[in-house]
Amino acid sequence: MHGMMMKEPLSIIEILRYAAAAHPGAGIVSVRTEGDIHRETYAEAYARAGQLAHGLARLGVGRGDRVATLAWNGYRHFELYYAISGMGAVCHTINPRLSAEQMLYIIGHAQDRVLCFDVTFTPILEGLAEHLPKDLILVAMTDRAQMPDSPLDLLCYEDLLEGQPEEYDWPSLDEESAAALCYTSGTTGHPKGALFSHRSTVLHAMTVAICLSKSLSEGARVLPVVPLFHVNAWGLPYAAPLAGASLVMPGAKLDGASLFDLMEAEHVTSAWGVPTVWLGLRGEIDKRGRNPEGFAQVVVGGSAAPRSMIEGFEDSGVEVCHAWGMTEMSPVGTHGLLSAEMKVLPREEQMALKSKQGRRLFGVELKIVDEAGNRLPHDGRASGELYVRGNTVVSGYFSNPEASEKAIDAEGWFGTGDVASIDPQGFLTIQDRTKDLIKSGGEWISSIDLENIAMAHPKVASCAVIAVPHPKWDERPLLVVVPAGEAPELAELHEMMLEHVAKWQLPDAMVCVEELPLTATGKVSKLTLRRQFADYALPDAV
Amino acid sequence: MHGMMMKEPLSIIEILRYAAAAHPGAGIVSVRTEGDIHRETYAEAYARAGQLAHGLARLGVGRGDRVATLAWNGYRHFELYYAISGMGAVCHTINPRLSAEQMLYIIGHAQDRVLCFDVTFTPILEGLAEHLPKDLILVAMTDRAQMPDSPLDLLCYEDLLEGQPEEYDWPSLDEESAAALCYTSGTTGHPKGALFSHRSTVLHAMTVAICLSKSLSEGARVLPVVPLFHVNAWGLPYAAPLAGASLVMPGAKLDGASLFDLMEAEHVTSAWGVPTVWLGLRGEIDKRGRNPEGFAQVVVGGSAAPRSMIEGFEDSGVEVCHAWGMTEMSPVGTHGLLSAEMKVLPREEQMALKSKQGRRLFGVELKIVDEAGNRLPHDGRASGELYVRGNTVVSGYFSNPEASEKAIDAEGWFGTGDVASIDPQGFLTIQDRTKDLIKSGGEWISSIDLENIAMAHPKVASCAVIAVPHPKWDERPLLVVVPAGEAPELAELHEMMLEHVAKWQLPDAMVCVEELPLTATGKVSKLTLRRQFADYALPDAV
Ligand SMILES: Nc1ncnc2c1ncn2[C@@H]1O[C@H](COP(=O)(O)O)[C@@H](O)[C@H]1O
Repeated sequence: MHGMMMKEPLSIIEILRYAAAAHPGAGIVSVRTEGDIHRETYAEAYARAGQLAHGLARLGVGRGDRVATLAWNGYRHFELYYAISGMGAVCHTINPRLSAEQMLYIIGHAQDRVLCFDVTFTPILEGLAEHLPKDLILVAMTDRAQMPDSPLDLLCYEDLLEGQPEEYDWPSLDEESAAALCYTSGTTGHPKGALFSHRSTVLHAMTVAICLSKSLSEGARVLPVVPLFHVNAWGLPYAAPLAGASLVMPGAKLDGASLFDLMEAEHVTSAWGVPTVWLGLRGEIDKRGRNPEGFAQVVVGGSAAPRSMIEGFEDSGVEVCHAWGMTEMSPVGTHGLLSAEMKVLPREEQMALKSKQGRRLFGVELKIVDEAGNRLPHDGRASGELYVRGNTVVSGYFSNPEASEKAIDAEGWFGTGDVASIDPQGFLTIQDRTKDLIKSGGEWISSIDLENIAMAHPKVASCAVIAVPHPKWDERPLLVVVPAGEAPELAELHEMMLEHVAKWQLPDAMVCVEELPLTATGKVSKLTLRRQFADYALPDAV
Repeated sequence: MHGMMMKEPLSIIEILRYAAAAHPGAGIVSVRTEGDIHRETYAEAYARAGQLAHGLARLGVGRGDRVATLAWNGYRHFELYYAISGMGAVCHTINPRLSAEQMLYIIGHAQDRVLCFDVTFTPILEGLAEHLPKDLILVAMTDRAQMPDSPLDLLCYEDLLEGQPEEYDWPSLDEESAAALCYTSGTTGHPKGALFSHRSTVLHAMTVAICLSKSLSEGARVLPVVPLFHVNAWGLPYAAPLAGASLVMPGAKLDGASLFDLMEAEHVTSAWGVPTVWLGLRGEIDKRGRNPEGFAQVVVGGSAAPRSMIEGFEDSGVEVCHAWGMTEMSPVGTHGLLSAEMKVLPREEQMALKSKQGRRLFGVELKIVDEAGNRLPHDGRASGELYVRGNTVVSGYFSNPEASEKAIDAEGWFGTGDVASIDPQGFLTIQDRTKDLIKSGGEWISSIDLENIAMAHPKVASCAVIAVPHPKWDERPLLVVVPAGEAPELAELHEMMLEHVAKWQLPDAMVCVEELPLTATGKVSKLTLRRQFADYALPDAV
């Protein structure tokens, strides 16, 4: 028997429409690529999203079309999120840190019709220009006066909005319609696209707003250092307006000093980002001997937050929330806020809990399994591959049946590629990774891709690329080579790699060995290698 | 194009399962009908809900079956909410204030299979006994030792749970499945059932938790004086555990002194109920010259909160949230919390805003229309019938096609029967009512029902029942009679009425007039009458 209740589709644009009315004083502060600070309320953003939707419609953007963005965190990027999804198209955020090859691949795979980019990325596009689809419309996210001097055929973002009505007749969409697309690195091969729906996005925003209500409340001022071009800035562009928190968008300057100044000037209460970014900020805090005023909470995720960092913040009165998630989870899966009872535990125990990766959000299910797929107990000891389930988890990858097939287990759960234990209180501890990837400053590097390139070099007999701990980037790639006679130079391998991967993805160092350790089944044992080189001192790791 | 996200049905039992793990210290404190205070955590409640589901299954309760409750606010009632909905049955809350006739009607209309009741209501059931369906199973919500001495054939609630496993294999249900049923008075005729779904209930809980996050956060202690047997205690049994707030359940004693003592002993931070209840508490606060310790917020709704009450609370440091809603809205529609900007307005302006009925919750749409159904502006002046739309609004009434048909307008909105204006900031002001009902202490009285009975008396030529303001009950019924010769006695009319309505629904007074004012179309003008008797001093209105 069904209930007798209305069914209105959950819809992304409703979040902004609500925020515009419910939180009249809240909005977005942006450090612009133009150099100045820009402010707009959610009501203004909603009106401009309406104009933008009209502008995009005039370019021919229709339901289901992909519109790409290549941009820093700023108000125009925020407007694009809402206008594109609101009109029924799909907002495809591109990570500017991808290699040219990867970028071209995803633009082609997504079949983007329009690409909107921050002018700082003009050189990237000029570099790609001859390989870009001929009918791809390029929109520079700036005004007429600041349009870059470029041989490319560019439209101007502000021109698109100019003169358009602020009211847009947002269509009523099936709540399962695609709304946003974000590619994530696979262990090997091409990036894979997570295709979010209106339903998944709205439910994610709601659950984040509930579980992290302390950071996301009316009057809060939240700094997403985590990029809008990667993992949806952890859902903040949706959860913050819903909850009435303002967003402080840092633009391109993410060094410690710039962040400190921005946080202080804008009275940021909660800042969200990967450990690498907070290292820089902590350095600046140490230098000035104080926190930015009003700074009360930091949300750290994307890589394990080192305990020393957690203690550094906590000791100075900044609450640390250690979170875990992944693109395929919209992305937040767990949060590390302590319950009232835990907050009265001795400091050591609290820090131990905060060093773990937190507890599940409402609506997210976690299970760990052994190699045969049997469930393991949540006893804090058993460790196995982590699987997840819920409305905010992908059911596969966009236009990629093969990867989709592999992603989901027989019970319908998504395999995260993380190895974890879960304690009786529900705290997750990420122990290891089954996926052969290295996470540097919050971004992925594929070991296997690098290995495949290196193997093609005549002086390389066999090789492996492994993650080595790095104080700043969390992990960096180390290339372990068995030479075929004379040892190769790292420089010559770099040269070959640069044709396929981005510069920051190159191995930091190379070591030559006589043979690689093997597993029982004769594969290279990355586990043994990682242990062997756990203390390896990378050249720039100070 | 659809997104590629998992679709897990939104499910009520997931709220309690989540709370049990996420908020280990939070739970339910209940003043028991047995007289003592009972405490259980959400984890304990979840385990007992599992046992209860087993017990109900053994009684033969299956998917879609209706299980009724007739109970005060307490932990067993809370457990029934979750066990019944969780197993796929429908939790039908019965208002003990209904007349015998109405109660029998709704038990029959709902086709209840089981009825669970607090032992204080044993006399009510004994009174109804001979008219109750023969196969209705009666469960006394107590333990074996406290079973009432009654000629009725009664099962014992604790016996049902005894020995049952705590794990129950909660079925995966379509999220639109019916989960709860609550009857509400119509203008005339029988009560009508609002049939809530899992989806509507979970979305309501989430949106209440977000919009009222200040009151519903981890560590908060919330007192629902608003009954679980009416309007789902404003959704608190769902929103509080989701957000990690504890519930303090007052049982049957709702006088000012009892509430004060309970609030103080249990450190209640936020208390929710109708104005009538807060009058009693305010009296007690005045007597003792202070607030219960820890009392920080009061949520008032169900009837208009008088400005003097709002000011009384606010002046003593208790924040007032004036909310509006109705059974058919799950029930919360608006909340009266001020945004940051409004909180710095002069006190007078703040109090004026708080006297209004608040702004819409996320997901709730409001419109006001004129008699022809045209939309009126939200300018704070235009006033018209209020219509609502959203996932938490009914699309009709249970097994009542006629009432369902009338409830929804051509655009698919639900007509509230309230007349309101909406100001440019979104604040609702309830001006009047198109429905011919009187709201006394949060409960409805049908004018038309009383009129129909009175009209049957030979000494009544014509008559009208109208709401007259009452300092305690907000409104009470006044009977205005045009006698057919000799005037009737109120007592003889009361006698006739008592056969159909509850005692508290009887008119407080009667006045005789020579004729009733008529509208242009020749109907009795209740509006004119209400104005005429606005200052009428009811006998017990001190
Ligand atoms: N804050 C309020 N001010 C005035 N009337 C209210 C308020 N809240 C609820 N009501 C009335 O109560 C009705 C809902 O009653 P119920 O379904 O019993 O909750 C609404 O349609 C209004 O007429």
